[in-house]
Amino acid sequence: MGRVTERRRVIRIRDGAVSTRPDTLVAEEPLEIRLNGKPLAITMRTPGDDFALAAGFLVSEGVLGRADELANIVYCAGATQDGSNTYNVVDVTLAPGVPVPDITLERNVYTTSSCGLCGKASLDAVRTTARWPLADGLEDAGGSAVRIEPETLTVLPDRLRAAQRVFDRTGGLHAAALFSPDGELLDLREDVGRHNAVDKLVGRALQQGLLPLSGSVLMVSGRASFELAQKAVMAGIPVLAAVSAPSSLAVDLAAETGLTLVGFLRGTSMNVYAGEQRLALRTAVGGA
Amino acid sequence: MGRVTERRRVIRIRDGAVSTRPDTLVAEEPLEIRLNGKPLAITMRTPGDDFALAAGFLVSEGVLGRADELANIVYCAGATQDGSNTYNVVDVTLAPGVPVPDITLERNVYTTSSCGLCGKASLDAVRTTARWPLADGLEDAGGSAVRIEPETLTVLPDRLRAAQRVFDRTGGLHAAALFSPDGELLDLREDVGRHNAVDKLVGRALQQGLLPLSGSVLMVSGRASFELAQKAVMAGIPVLAAVSAPSSLAVDLAAETGLTLVGFLRGTSMNVYAGEQRLALRTAVGGA
Repeated sequence: MGRVTERRRVIRIRDGAVSTRPDTLVAEEPLEIRLNGKPLAITMRTPGDDFALAAGFLVSEGVLGRADELANIVYCAGATQDGSNTYNVVDVTLAPGVPVPDITLERNVYTTSSCGLCGKASLDAVRTTARWPLADGLEDAGGSAVRIEPETLTVLPDRLRAAQRVFDRTGGLHAAALFSPDGELLDLREDVGRHNAVDKLVGRALQQGLLPLSGSVLMVSGRASFELAQKAVMAGIPVLAAVSAPSSLAVDLAAETGLTLVGFLRGTSMNVYAGEQRLALRTAVGGA
Repeated sequence: MGRVTERRRVIRIRDGAVSTRPDTLVAEEPLEIRLNGKPLAITMRTPGDDFALAAGFLVSEGVLGRADELANIVYCAGATQDGSNTYNVVDVTLAPGVPVPDITLERNVYTTSSCGLCGKASLDAVRTTARWPLADGLEDAGGSAVRIEPETLTVLPDRLRAAQRVFDRTGGLHAAALFSPDGELLDLREDVGRHNAVDKLVGRALQQGLLPLSGSVLMVSGRASFELAQKAVMAGIPVLAAVSAPSSLAVDLAAETGLTLVGFLRGTSMNVYAGEQRLALRTAVGGA
């Protein structure tokens, strides 16, 4: 349990020279998330922060929103052949009265019984289940208005990278971090799955009673997919910044929900795809 | 349908200068895969090659192995409110007599009803369902023995990158490619999801009657997860090479199934994590 890295033998080839040595790898193990005893989802994740991962997953899916809706999370033990606990199955018990969703959840996307599945349906599902609709940036969920200097955003990638301890040893982890609007690192999680890293952040925030995360910026180490934008919206996070490119559906979701979406955040440059009202842009927006 | 890229407005900030212009984004849309009319999985993918994606997904899950086991794939139309076809739902019909799996498939991992979920169970699931067990490299599935010069591997990343047409426009795609053992590019697919890119490759090969892909090398643009190693094994691909780090479970799966797994393939360097018998290593393997 909680093995973030593992050691394996590796054959290194450097300019034709061959040597054998031990290498540190990022650990990957399956985690089954159960809800009130019923299997809900399986994700391949880096062990550790499993309760936060499960809680954050349920926030992303609209099941949880407040710490008091969560009665308990335990590792599910005993059903292995030798009776041992693999620490790879967690069971989340909702507080009495909290509705148990009557849905088959595939990872990140609601299963539909019609043939009408489309990007629009995905957007609608997020918009209609979001507990804390993002406002226009003048007043977000929680009543606070987040306003950020672009210069502040430009320092986040270096701060994210500097705080990535496991990546330095393995080169194999995605990272997600929460920052304050003035660039202070609030929390950081690493995982083989970028979505897991975000779930761990959000779940930890739920457990600490910090949702919605209306006064924070979510920074991710890679691309910005629909799934990551969804997780930001569901946690009430008003700003998502990514080192690499967003997808079309991530941009559409951001535009529809009021999420500020920044991509290609590198050096002193960035692209703003939606929600620019939260950025203090000194120059009038114009051009081609 | 088949929109690989989409245009959106973007605000560019470069050293404080702000401008607005159109930008090209990688398209992302949900795809629901049905098997004999029954919903099986949903994946967020880049539209295009959807039939190949569905077929390859079913190869990865052990449902399909030969072209003649596949009766038909169609876009499922008609159930939208306006009666239109979203081209986001495909229905795969198996040939008569092909067993329909009686399993709930989560994306990439078999759901278990016990609490014994662990990495070992994931490895066992792949090993027991693989149709073309990889041999020791002296003779692989199909009777051919793949043997590769490390120098050949070192040229693959550049060839992969050069062939990535959509990435050049969007910076937002993962790529997966099949190469011959002497480095010839056989096929390449790009997708917002790396697993989808591999499924598209494998599905295309199934449709063309080319499985098992025992004489080929699978090269992926990023990290090597368990999931990607699983897909290689299930398609009978003996060599998986990745630009970045593998996970512990990917290495374990490679070691257990006989897959050659190469990571950190950059410049003239690489790390070999398993299956080194297929590489023509001039120097005796030794060292620490």
